[in-house]
Amino acid sequence: MPLARIDISKTASRDRVRDVSAAVYNAMVAVGGVPPSDKFQMITRHEPDEIIYPEEGYLGIDYTPDLIIIQITWVAGRSTDVKKQFFQYIADEIHAKQGVRKQDIWINLVEANREDWSFGNGEMQYGPK
Amino acid sequence: MPLARIDISKTASRDRVRDVSAAVYNAMVAVGGVPPSDKFQMITRHEPDEIIYPEEGYLGIDYTPDLIIIQITWVAGRSTDVKKQFFQYIADEIHAKQGVRKQDIWINLVEANREDWSFGNGEMQYGPK
Amino acid sequence: MPLARIDISKTASRDRVRDVSAAVYNAMVAVGGVPPSDKFQMITRHEPDEIIYPEEGYLGIDYTPDLIIIQITWVAGRSTDVKKQFFQYIADEIHAKQGVRKQDIWINLVEANREDWSFGNGEMQYGPK
Repeated sequence: MPLARIDISKTASRDRVRDVSAAVYNAMVAVGGVPPSDKFQMITRHEPDEIIYPEEGYLGIDYTPDLIIIQITWVAGRSTDVKKQFFQYIADEIHAKQGVRKQDIWINLVEANREDWSFGNGEMQYGPK
Repeated sequence: MPLARIDISKTASRDRVRDVSAAVYNAMVAVGGVPPSDKFQMITRHEPDEIIYPEEGYLGIDYTPDLIIIQITWVAGRSTDVKKQFFQYIADEIHAKQGVRKQDIWINLVEANREDWSFGNGEMQYGPK
Repeated sequence: MPLARIDISKTASRDRVRDVSAAVYNAMVAVGGVPPSDKFQMITRHEPDEIIYPEEGYLGIDYTPDLIIIQITWVAGRSTDVKKQFFQYIADEIHAKQGVRKQDIWINLVEANREDWSFGNGEMQYGPK
């Protein structure tokens, strides 16, 4: 059910985008309790002045134009601990595969209900029977 | 009040985009309880590798590069039954008008409060007086 | 913590985009209770037929192709009064700096939890210790 929006620089290689996409999906399945094959993502590429971050950094973290912003909408109910592991998994895997600085991996979660999804066919697959 | 994001392939015709947009709006008015003229949508077009779906399908549904992802933010409060009709209406109309496979119509709803909208002029039109 | 998506016409000048971005950030800090430097935004530019609004207007407000759609995800908890001031601040500043009609400034807020954010390093900076 999750829907991930990945916003990334136009200069990022296709290989990098593929690894970011895979990391988000892998984290969902490995620690997020998401069923295998539930992989729906949109990539939007941006010019350098279209991904905006504080030049001076925030909370002691500094950013570069490599910043990747990942916004995930999924069903509510995951624990704080699961979310913590989820964030770490994504940052670790993207860093390991592509050498992106972990500071440049930014994630936000948005919660929806089970009734808020149609995976095709006009059906509400997760709704009550 | 709803804000719809429609993500679709760069190869989709303008005509198809127009019909998808109309179907989303028509479903809102016909079954979603949305007032006429409350039509605010953004279209983002993507390269083939920027709309990502499981090649092997999910929940018995298979997808093609024609996949259209529709994410709608609106005010909370609609019943499960209304949401079911809403999903079906969109898939039926897009399929009827453009021949898009119903499997390739993917919808997610996000709920906000009445106070979370400004339709212009810096005002909170739906807030308490 | 807020994440702002700003959708705007391809014909808008870089200067206009910069001022819109600044207005959203300034409103957050001045009236939204957001800490300084918490500035994370994405700009997506659109063709004229990709930002869709009712030609006939809505709630007595009419729109032009200059319409700017601002969707902000932030932590829940702000009062209705703060949200009202926030909307007005953004519309006033964009109008003052760029002469954009206030009717063409459209804002939606989405609320998330404190646990739903990672500002980098794979950490949950706002979560419980």
